[in-house]
Amino acid sequence: MSGYWWQAPVAQWHQAVMRSAQQRQAELTKPAGALGRLEDLAIQLAAMQGSNQPSIMAPWICVFAADHGVVAEGVSAYPQAVTGEMLRNFSEGGAAICVLARYLQATLRVMDLGLAIPTAPLTGVEHRPIAAGTGNLSRCAAMSDEHCLTAMQAGREAVLAAESADLFIGGEMGIGNSTSATALASALLDLPAARLVGPGAGLDAAGIEHKRKVIERGLKHHAARLQDPLSALACLGGLEIAALVGAYLAAGQRGLPVLVDGYISSVAALCAARLSPGCRDWMLFSHRSAEPGHALVLQALNATPLLDLGMRLGEGSGAAVAVPLLRAACALHNQMATFAQAAVSARQPC
Amino acid sequence: MSGYWWQAPVAQWHQAVMRSAQQRQAELTKPAGALGRLEDLAIQLAAMQGSNQPSIMAPWICVFAADHGVVAEGVSAYPQAVTGEMLRNFSEGGAAICVLARYLQATLRVMDLGLAIPTAPLTGVEHRPIAAGTGNLSRCAAMSDEHCLTAMQAGREAVLAAESADLFIGGEMGIGNSTSATALASALLDLPAARLVGPGAGLDAAGIEHKRKVIERGLKHHAARLQDPLSALACLGGLEIAALVGAYLAAGQRGLPVLVDGYISSVAALCAARLSPGCRDWMLFSHRSAEPGHALVLQALNATPLLDLGMRLGEGSGAAVAVPLLRAACALHNQMATFAQAAVSARQPC
Repeated sequence: MSGYWWQAPVAQWHQAVMRSAQQRQAELTKPAGALGRLEDLAIQLAAMQGSNQPSIMAPWICVFAADHGVVAEGVSAYPQAVTGEMLRNFSEGGAAICVLARYLQATLRVMDLGLAIPTAPLTGVEHRPIAAGTGNLSRCAAMSDEHCLTAMQAGREAVLAAESADLFIGGEMGIGNSTSATALASALLDLPAARLVGPGAGLDAAGIEHKRKVIERGLKHHAARLQDPLSALACLGGLEIAALVGAYLAAGQRGLPVLVDGYISSVAALCAARLSPGCRDWMLFSHRSAEPGHALVLQALNATPLLDLGMRLGEGSGAAVAVPLLRAACALHNQMATFAQAAVSARQPC
Repeated sequence: MSGYWWQAPVAQWHQAVMRSAQQRQAELTKPAGALGRLEDLAIQLAAMQGSNQPSIMAPWICVFAADHGVVAEGVSAYPQAVTGEMLRNFSEGGAAICVLARYLQATLRVMDLGLAIPTAPLTGVEHRPIAAGTGNLSRCAAMSDEHCLTAMQAGREAVLAAESADLFIGGEMGIGNSTSATALASALLDLPAARLVGPGAGLDAAGIEHKRKVIERGLKHHAARLQDPLSALACLGGLEIAALVGAYLAAGQRGLPVLVDGYISSVAALCAARLSPGCRDWMLFSHRSAEPGHALVLQALNATPLLDLGMRLGEGSGAAVAVPLLRAACALHNQMATFAQAAVSARQPC
């Protein structure tokens, strides 16, 4: 377990800047605390960015896509071909995350980490196939340790490539990946799959019950290897999930705030926090997914997301929808007048 | 009760456009329902705007400001002078809603409906004083019926002036107005003040207890006049609250969607819905305030706000923060590819 890149220290918040930001929030023309969580967000972003004028000018979104061998067990409402079809949809700008990236004027990158059936090269997609999707986690390791580390490295490189970014959002696409994420979350939280399993992209009750059994078979098969988060990730995760883990670890080392998307991304965030607890400090949480397992994963991360809109799409879409809240928090922090500037009276003595 | 302008019919949603929007949502490249409440928002805005391409290009914010006689009872953490001082802060662009309006590229209007001590004329503020603030609701009517109707008319005119708007947001500023709003909500909901009363801009526990007693005295004093929502508004409301009521009523008649802000605004929305139930159809609800009475008011309106960020500032600020969610919903609805366009496979038969 020694010598992995993510064992180097994470970056630290700028404590002096944080104190200045806290003081400024107390001086702005509003009752103390009246902007609620927007005040905390501004203070956190100031501390993360080391700036008295925090801003989200250049969000950088990277969507990682890959296939999952476990779909052979019939755990998804959609055929496996959809992963590649959606890659083409990303390439052509028609997917939800493409629309949101344009709306935000954010950079959008898409990385293909391995489809069951490779597509022809697609414009705007970085094809870096590591394997033809993962193995079937209910019967064998999803990834070899080497493939898992390679996928994590791909995520790390995605963060390092985001040189101009002031916020990183990871997204994922992969038919079957809520099965993989649920298996990994069950292992990391040491909870039965029944506590976490849900409909994913649209299973009915019988489908969810079948999915639970498939996950339980996988957990049993790999039981001896699930204590260590890295080997749990290799046994149960996906190439895109491992890439998200690597991205979150790298963001913590670089000191780049990340806005975590929904269920799949939060499971990756939990895995990253188990590998390097300090990286949690660089994570903001965007939304509470409709997927039932999300609440337990968020609780383990001590995270309260900003939005609860019943979203469950992935792709980074929930995080993208939350970006304007961060921008509003920064604008208020940077531009509001203070009581002294505006000559507004302070509160009365009690 | 006959012959009031708000008794003319409200506008109707475009049913055919709503059906088209529902069908389009089912065809976009995502699992059905995966965008959660953003799907409902897009469908509602399409139906309200009568457009297959709903949009929020031109939000129009109008902040109504006025003073409250009940502050003589010591119910606010801030001195009454703050209402006028904040008007100057609005004029100078330093208040939260000014920052948010710039961020959204929204129109911002500010209307002074009556301060206890008038200010000199302020740039960008429309001074239309109806009275030198309201009467002390715990001892007399806050407004005469005539003043109440005049304030409602001012709100109506604010909506009619918003010719180019595709969304209306009402805001309010008035030291003491959470006392007034709580009294009015207690009357409209027929609930004891203790169920609704809260800290407003920052009372401590003893201050809240005192505020409750003041409200209860007012409710007792006006008991004979509280069955009718219009006379309850005159007895207990404020000039800015009556203006919000008029604005919501006028928006329903005009068919202009409104995004309701927090506690004070929601009490005005409830009063409007009691006067003309159909105007509720034109209301979207932005956020759940930290003020404890808000939950009961929202429940009576059958409203689930989009955000729950612990905000409690007023000025329209919570509604402004929610505008990007509406814009994201519209962008997704208008720009995502359909399954057919993107040649993405539909879900598998169960």
